Amino acid sequence: MIVVMRRDASAADIEGVLARLRERALTPHISAGAERTIIGILGPVGASGVASALGSITPELGAMLEGLDGVEQVLEVSKPYKLASREFHPEATLVHVPSPGGEVVIGASEVVMMAGPCTVESEEQLMAAAHAARAGGATVLRGGAYKPSTSPYGFRGLGAAGLKLLALARQQTGLAVVTEVMTPAEVELVAEYADILQIGARNMQNYYLLDEVGRSGKPVLLKRGFSATIEEWLLAAEYILAQGNPNVILCERGIRTFERMTRNTVDINAVPLVKQLSHLPVVVDPSQGTGKRSLVASVALAAVAAGADGLIVEIHPHPDAAVKDGAQSLHLAQYAELMPRMRAVAAAVGRE
Amino acid sequence: MIVVMRRDASAADIEGVLARLRERALTPHISAGAERTIIGILGPVGASGVASALGSITPELGAMLEGLDGVEQVLEVSKPYKLASREFHPEATLVHVPSPGGEVVIGASEVVMMAGPCTVESEEQLMAAAHAARAGGATVLRGGAYKPSTSPYGFRGLGAAGLKLLALARQQTGLAVVTEVMTPAEVELVAEYADILQIGARNMQNYYLLDEVGRSGKPVLLKRGFSATIEEWLLAAEYILAQGNPNVILCERGIRTFERMTRNTVDINAVPLVKQLSHLPVVVDPSQGTGKRSLVASVALAAVAAGADGLIVEIHPHPDAAVKDGAQSLHLAQYAELMPRMRAVAAAVGRE
Amino acid sequence: MIVVMRRDASAADIEGVLARLRERALTPHISAGAERTIIGILGPVGASGVASALGSITPELGAMLEGLDGVEQVLEVSKPYKLASREFHPEATLVHVPSPGGEVVIGASEVVMMAGPCTVESEEQLMAAAHAARAGGATVLRGGAYKPSTSPYGFRGLGAAGLKLLALARQQTGLAVVTEVMTPAEVELVAEYADILQIGARNMQNYYLLDEVGRSGKPVLLKRGFSATIEEWLLAAEYILAQGNPNVILCERGIRTFERMTRNTVDINAVPLVKQLSHLPVVVDPSQGTGKRSLVASVALAAVAAGADGLIVEIHPHPDAAVKDGAQSLHLAQYAELMPRMRAVAAAVGRE
Amino acid sequence: MIVVMRRDASAADIEGVLARLRERALTPHISAGAERTIIGILGPVGASGVASALGSITPELGAMLEGLDGVEQVLEVSKPYKLASREFHPEATLVHVPSPGGEVVIGASEVVMMAGPCTVESEEQLMAAAHAARAGGATVLRGGAYKPSTSPYGFRGLGAAGLKLLALARQQTGLAVVTEVMTPAEVELVAEYADILQIGARNMQNYYLLDEVGRSGKPVLLKRGFSATIEEWLLAAEYILAQGNPNVILCERGIRTFERMTRNTVDINAVPLVKQLSHLPVVVDPSQGTGKRSLVASVALAAVAAGADGLIVEIHPHPDAAVKDGAQSLHLAQYAELMPRMRAVAAAVGRE
Repeated sequence: MIVVMRRDASAADIEGVLARLRERALTPHISAGAERTIIGILGPVGASGVASALGSITPELGAMLEGLDGVEQVLEVSKPYKLASREFHPEATLVHVPSPGGEVVIGASEVVMMAGPCTVESEEQLMAAAHAARAGGATVLRGGAYKPSTSPYGFRGLGAAGLKLLALARQQTGLAVVTEVMTPAEVELVAEYADILQIGARNMQNYYLLDEVGRSGKPVLLKRGFSATIEEWLLAAEYILAQGNPNVILCERGIRTFERMTRNTVDINAVPLVKQLSHLPVVVDPSQGTGKRSLVASVALAAVAAGADGLIVEIHPHPDAAVKDGAQSLHLAQYAELMPRMRAVAAAVGRE
Repeated sequence: MIVVMRRDASAADIEGVLARLRERALTPHISAGAERTIIGILGPVGASGVASALGSITPELGAMLEGLDGVEQVLEVSKPYKLASREFHPEATLVHVPSPGGEVVIGASEVVMMAGPCTVESEEQLMAAAHAARAGGATVLRGGAYKPSTSPYGFRGLGAAGLKLLALARQQTGLAVVTEVMTPAEVELVAEYADILQIGARNMQNYYLLDEVGRSGKPVLLKRGFSATIEEWLLAAEYILAQGNPNVILCERGIRTFERMTRNTVDINAVPLVKQLSHLPVVVDPSQGTGKRSLVASVALAAVAAGADGLIVEIHPHPDAAVKDGAQSLHLAQYAELMPRMRAVAAAVGRE
Repeated sequence: MIVVMRRDASAADIEGVLARLRERALTPHISAGAERTIIGILGPVGASGVASALGSITPELGAMLEGLDGVEQVLEVSKPYKLASREFHPEATLVHVPSPGGEVVIGASEVVMMAGPCTVESEEQLMAAAHAARAGGATVLRGGAYKPSTSPYGFRGLGAAGLKLLALARQQTGLAVVTEVMTPAEVELVAEYADILQIGARNMQNYYLLDEVGRSGKPVLLKRGFSATIEEWLLAAEYILAQGNPNVILCERGIRTFERMTRNTVDINAVPLVKQLSHLPVVVDPSQGTGKRSLVASVALAAVAAGADGLIVEIHPHPDAAVKDGAQSLHLAQYAELMPRMRAVAAAVGRE
Repeated sequence: MIVVMRRDASAADIEGVLARLRERALTPHISAGAERTIIGILGPVGASGVASALGSITPELGAMLEGLDGVEQVLEVSKPYKLASREFHPEATLVHVPSPGGEVVIGASEVVMMAGPCTVESEEQLMAAAHAARAGGATVLRGGAYKPSTSPYGFRGLGAAGLKLLALARQQTGLAVVTEVMTPAEVELVAEYADILQIGARNMQNYYLLDEVGRSGKPVLLKRGFSATIEEWLLAAEYILAQGNPNVILCERGIRTFERMTRNTVDINAVPLVKQLSHLPVVVDPSQGTGKRSLVASVALAAVAAGADGLIVEIHPHPDAAVKDGAQSLHLAQYAELMPRMRAVAAAVGRE
């Protein structure tokens, strides 16, 4: 952390900052330039709390220093996350997901395909999608039983009945199941049925929920909030990791920008960048990320070329009759056509 | 809702859309132009579900139609919220908040000041802030007992002990209390102590929480999500109203933009716009909205001039030692100085 | 400038950075912490070029250092603008604009109103607007003779004929004239007719144009680009100032965000912030900033309360028949009604 | 275009809209629903101007109608661009660029590589980069002689001397040359030396410049403004096409978002979307698009997988000593390594 003093900061202002640092047992590095003074604090990043905070940079330290007299700005130097960071954990994390069809490994050489309907609607719909997903080469089935709806008048999912249908599809196809959990009180129930717990974009900073899925120990697919910075996303992962659950899969699903022609803007830069910053696997959701069926295949291929460890794609036997998000769901035939193209691109970048 | 067909849409494509509308008992208005056909659907907005959906525009209808062959885009015409809308409820809502010092009314001629520390830290700190708030003319005390922290290593608040301190301050000063609740399971506890339940920006789309504060019947201060559109914000209010709780206060607290010199960008346009779209009172948080103490007063005055029904401002007896957000907290003397200026601006725009 | 080395940077990496700094005669301040090393460079900000660059921080230095081996990031400390900065010029700049009706001063205690049509359409339209502007208390007439149009099929203004109409209105009303200039080759012509040259938002980074209006010596109203950071905006002002022209008026006219209900989002935070960072006067354009007539008055009042030195507002005798931007133009009667309210708010914040 | 009336619009309000449409010889399609009336206008898109505007939708029509009494909003239906649109020109445009090494075709099956330094610095630097570019398989050399600089103290390029060095490199290597032109007065000079004129992101809405490069007839590489919507980008292309110059190459170079870890966010969705909306070729600039050398290769491969017709990449013999943008320039060896990987991905998606 670096405290940049104003040009007109007085000696008393500088002493004021140093006094605060001494109280916290932090060692300042002072550089007095011709124009201004800067004060470096290079201690380790620590947690809040009276005892543990001594000698370490707590999350609130910067905001506190920024308010002192004579301070112009405070610049962060250290990364605020540790467990999610590749600096502290250089080897890539592989998330192992047991499933009736054999273990699925996410983060290894194989690019993993997760496919299925946006929402579980009925046994017929889900089974048709699941068998097609399997036939195309997916190893994970997606499908929402609990659905966030922007409007209170919208469809909020089949709930427990949807979970049971997912369990049936899992049994029949051998696919692992990923499905969303929306509130701490339902983690236990969803964890009974799902192989991977999904945290939706709107809940990326629902900290009670992150704590709870952390405690569950289950693999977690953590979607990036639609306006979350990469740092905030990795801090959300840190919440889960800090509960002792190392099985976090990051999912880029598009961010909100000024562009209105697509539902979201897939941040393709984030794929290689997060692979450099973190050891966690990264998958991409081109369905949510574009909102348009006609763009899904191209963006899916781009994600694989950029180094994604997997894809999560919405497919539906009858998108035109889908309860939710039909416009971004692939027809089963389109999905079947995408899979060999995805394999070709994966091979071109040295993946399976 | 308007379905815009592609220029090259076939007669079969158009018939496909009409068939879907007939299934739902919706009446289409077809306009066949030289270049393309558009199909208007002017039925009422309704809720999802087999029975209720017949003859009404459900929240998912647009996304479904957008995926049909030959459709270029679907344009929304009706507002997706009803209870929050001024169209259906032309008179301004007044939120009545009982408090030991007398009822506080939000949305009437008087501009209401809510002031207090970001976080409840100790009895000394809270009482000093509360007495100063009261002396300056505030009628509501703010203060966080449960705090969202971007980092898992950050301070998450005093919890129940913080609530008790707020109750003490309420008793001593007669101020009403607004404090944040973060998860459905804690609504009951927080509602015992708070006069107004605050939903934080990160939880604006935490639907289980919205349902629960809706059921509580208590006044709710609903902060706009930092990347929520105005429509999404009003739909979040609709969740609370739909549970039979009419006591919703909207709070603009700055949105996330590309500008990096301020923590957020206060959307001042939103103040008069939301007053036109909705009958609910609107308050502004210039502390979160700017992140800089030196900007708080100017933006507070701007909010009052723009028509805000109130302000919520962070004040602290020792901002330099604040656990959280000291850099955006006013010194008590700065707050005392702001209040007469605020009254002058309020009077200039015909408010008290 | 601060160079933050990676945790795993080698001694050779650090030496590599130091060697580059020595080549440029810059003095490094090295802070070796437990986790990483940071290198401060506190020299003055200078211009590019072999001779002048020695011993100073050039605009390109940071990008160069960021690419060196072992460097994690480079943080800017000094402001990249000087002439526009309040640090180097603490007193507020007053821009004096001569006009037939007497000198207009922008940046002093009086809040200046600039009003007129978006586009000069005809003598009748312009004279009606100009007389109304004058009657309400404006001292500057706005009106576009050269208009940027997003579409090549749109109206691009009356050109020289429009300038002549502005000159006529100036003569008849005594108002000073502000009008846009779009390309360097037309600066001379526009400067013959205008008292203030306007640089539109789309041209804020048209550097040849900034150079040319700088050389003209005329007062310049510099609109913020719709996605320009405050720093980029002040650097655009610096271009004009660096040509020896001190008469720059900054104009906040809304920025582009994700919010779709308004044309732009007025960055109200920018008003007090720019007044702190710079000595230049700041005016606000609530017409462009909102795009909706019904929001203009509220946002205009907010701007004055926030400390703006002036307003620039679109008015039209027949907005419903306006060639451009009728939906955001005030009717003359609405403008007449706004002016006393603006004066009341100005008085409430100690302005005239 | 669709005019959506307010729920409480009166018959007179509706008649007011219809009267305006009649004046312009436009045929309205009225749909009167239970809740509100909508009025469709399905005429062709036309240009402003008294005669040509009759019977057609001019670019200013929507803004005018939106200001009428009783109008809630105006929705655009037709695309505002014609010449750039695939609807009116279904076949892909191939841009033929003559060069000493043989014609380069952009938009055909072959993915075209354009490589070279950000800025032309010296003969040695440029020749080293040009020979390496050629050896790796590029067919176009990039390099800036005129450079936009955010700061007036920054390096603005070698100017005419830089153009001459580009001509020399062209002659020695047979590569075609693309270089930026920044102001109308310099188009003629730059066009003498360049095979492709580049319009930089900051100048995407510099309409005089667009007109002038349109008149030159030369191939134009049109970079997307960093905050331009896709529609605005295509309208900028329309300016060039409207001058009779069909040789426009669109270049996605990243947009400005809230994410701060990368210089820009490459809008990968835009690649397939623009290929659907327009017949013009699309190339991607992963150097500007990311700002980080370590991300360039991954994003370049992603762009090819998404369907880009080419790439434009910054390379430098000594990035650590580059005058500008060294941190995003590939070392020549990194470029050499990227080329076979790019070819593999191109082959995987059926391109050369």
